Amino acid sequence: MEVEEEVRRIVEQVKELHDSATSFVSSSSHEELSLRKRSSLVDASITRLHSILLSDKHHDPKLLEKLEEDLQRARCMLADGDTSSFLPSKPQGRFVRMFLGPVNVRASRKDIQLKVKEEYNSYRDRTALLFLVFPAILLTLRSYVWEGCLPAFPVQLYQAWLLFLYAGLAMRENILRANGSDIRSWWLYHHYCAMAMALVSLTWEIRGQPNCVQKQKGVRLFLQWAMMQGVAMLLQNRYQRQRLYTRIALGKAKRMDVVWGETAGVDGQLLLLCPILFTLQGFEAYVGLQLLRTALTGVVGEWQVLICGILLVVMAIGNFINTVETLMVKSRFKAKMKRSKSRAELD
Amino acid sequence: MEVEEEVRRIVEQVKELHDSATSFVSSSSHEELSLRKRSSLVDASITRLHSILLSDKHHDPKLLEKLEEDLQRARCMLADGDTSSFLPSKPQGRFVRMFLGPVNVRASRKDIQLKVKEEYNSYRDRTALLFLVFPAILLTLRSYVWEGCLPAFPVQLYQAWLLFLYAGLAMRENILRANGSDIRSWWLYHHYCAMAMALVSLTWEIRGQPNCVQKQKGVRLFLQWAMMQGVAMLLQNRYQRQRLYTRIALGKAKRMDVVWGETAGVDGQLLLLCPILFTLQGFEAYVGLQLLRTALTGVVGEWQVLICGILLVVMAIGNFINTVETLMVKSRFKAKMKRSKSRAELD
Repeated sequence: MEVEEEVRRIVEQVKELHDSATSFVSSSSHEELSLRKRSSLVDASITRLHSILLSDKHHDPKLLEKLEEDLQRARCMLADGDTSSFLPSKPQGRFVRMFLGPVNVRASRKDIQLKVKEEYNSYRDRTALLFLVFPAILLTLRSYVWEGCLPAFPVQLYQAWLLFLYAGLAMRENILRANGSDIRSWWLYHHYCAMAMALVSLTWEIRGQPNCVQKQKGVRLFLQWAMMQGVAMLLQNRYQRQRLYTRIALGKAKRMDVVWGETAGVDGQLLLLCPILFTLQGFEAYVGLQLLRTALTGVVGEWQVLICGILLVVMAIGNFINTVETLMVKSRFKAKMKRSKSRAELD
Repeated sequence: MEVEEEVRRIVEQVKELHDSATSFVSSSSHEELSLRKRSSLVDASITRLHSILLSDKHHDPKLLEKLEEDLQRARCMLADGDTSSFLPSKPQGRFVRMFLGPVNVRASRKDIQLKVKEEYNSYRDRTALLFLVFPAILLTLRSYVWEGCLPAFPVQLYQAWLLFLYAGLAMRENILRANGSDIRSWWLYHHYCAMAMALVSLTWEIRGQPNCVQKQKGVRLFLQWAMMQGVAMLLQNRYQRQRLYTRIALGKAKRMDVVWGETAGVDGQLLLLCPILFTLQGFEAYVGLQLLRTALTGVVGEWQVLICGILLVVMAIGNFINTVETLMVKSRFKAKMKRSKSRAELD
């Protein structure tokens, strides 16, 4: 009988396949383990040598600088090539574990890591546009159709969208971190704060007539701030992508770097971006303080107003500190570049 | 100079490491690809032979049954061993892509897949307990402390918790599916509905005095239903774990199977579980219809009431259909078992 023969053959094939899969898995996990060990040893040695070079005052500074550069190049080779997936990684954050369980979100191959990175960038572009358009539509309709009084539903839809947006961003950035990106941890905390705020503002009743203009002042300010945020995000995205590609070309950056809100780089655009960022942060703090004032003077007595005010102020302060820190890192880097350049000219 | 020598050595080591990592990645991805091809070929053949056997009326039914059993065993070997990670997988759902981007959530090794599964089970246990305790506390406090009138904040806290709970469940079940579990897709849709409901009910203002008892009837019914749901979840979890372990021991189930709300199995417990499930579904539909009635007769005119009512009715109907389908699969399986048993006795 023909079918019988075929079944017998398939069962045989399954057994063979099973054996070769088992031997492949065991041999490859063995080899992986050894690569992992070697990578973390080499990584530790580089860190150790780096600190030795930094504290060394006895030798020729030019020689030290050359050695430092060699180390930097070696580090880039480790982090940028196929070795990167064997380097010791940051543990996956609580946020990822809470939603996904113990699943591994680290890509095993460099090309997939870069795909994740690219997709994150285009996600940010798409959301930045919505960030601008959504509140703009709400504010326009408010002025020309709704006669100064926002209805509850569209605002709540916007708040729900913000909640999902920030959850997605937090998740993606956690994943990028697990894949070796050096994204600042503040941005993750920022997204958690923004999620909390979106959740709280969903429970915040949008009051209607009478006296709409006064009652909805907080919402209106928030929407205006969100529009500014949208413009800033678009500029930042464009600028950072350019900068990242330049840095990759120069071999200075690992390709997994993402620097949300970072301000170092092309000087002409920085002149535009920096004041916008600081204005945005100032306005964010202003909206927060306005909310706190209304909550404390008792015009609107809901706890949501108080919490949103506090969260906005915290986010404004955190953003400000992070921007300043990034600028300082940049100026230190520039000074170092200048020093080594003038030394080279002296020779 | 000693440091110079060390830096030179490290740079050398990094180059070697880089080369061996590159060659390992390329050779292992090559081998992986071939295993993937072989697996999907064998998998397709098994499916083809299975359908041939089903439609075959010419041969001895006993022989056909034996061949069918051989195929089943082969399938289990494929799905349960190291081969499983090379089998073609269901594409990752939109939900996962939306939040995580194109990252791969499939575990590459069987032991990690099983860890994911185990963690999912314990997550369900933990949440089932909270599902029971949280509304119970709210309802107790309502009767004895809050004098029949629920304050808004704790209820909203509960609703926010539900939102995160269902998001986590949906994410984990999507991941289990990507890892080869045959979880019914209805449960994913159910979780999306439940997320939508939690989100909508967050924007639903909890009315206070006067006339609290009437206005809060919907919330009260929902909390009572949630308590029943908690009890049912605890029973189901216990029952399904037992059943799964039994099935694994019998080699009948792949270990990645999760059957949320499934009812086939140990008959004694089923006598308890089935009526509870149907009562629960009936009560869910009742709460939904009550909400629809209040929305349509205009006692509470908010759109949230209408949406929540519709969602509850949809979920009740979906749950009912799925439970019945599972019971039918079970009874068909039982009939088949009986047939083959009686045939064996006749011989």
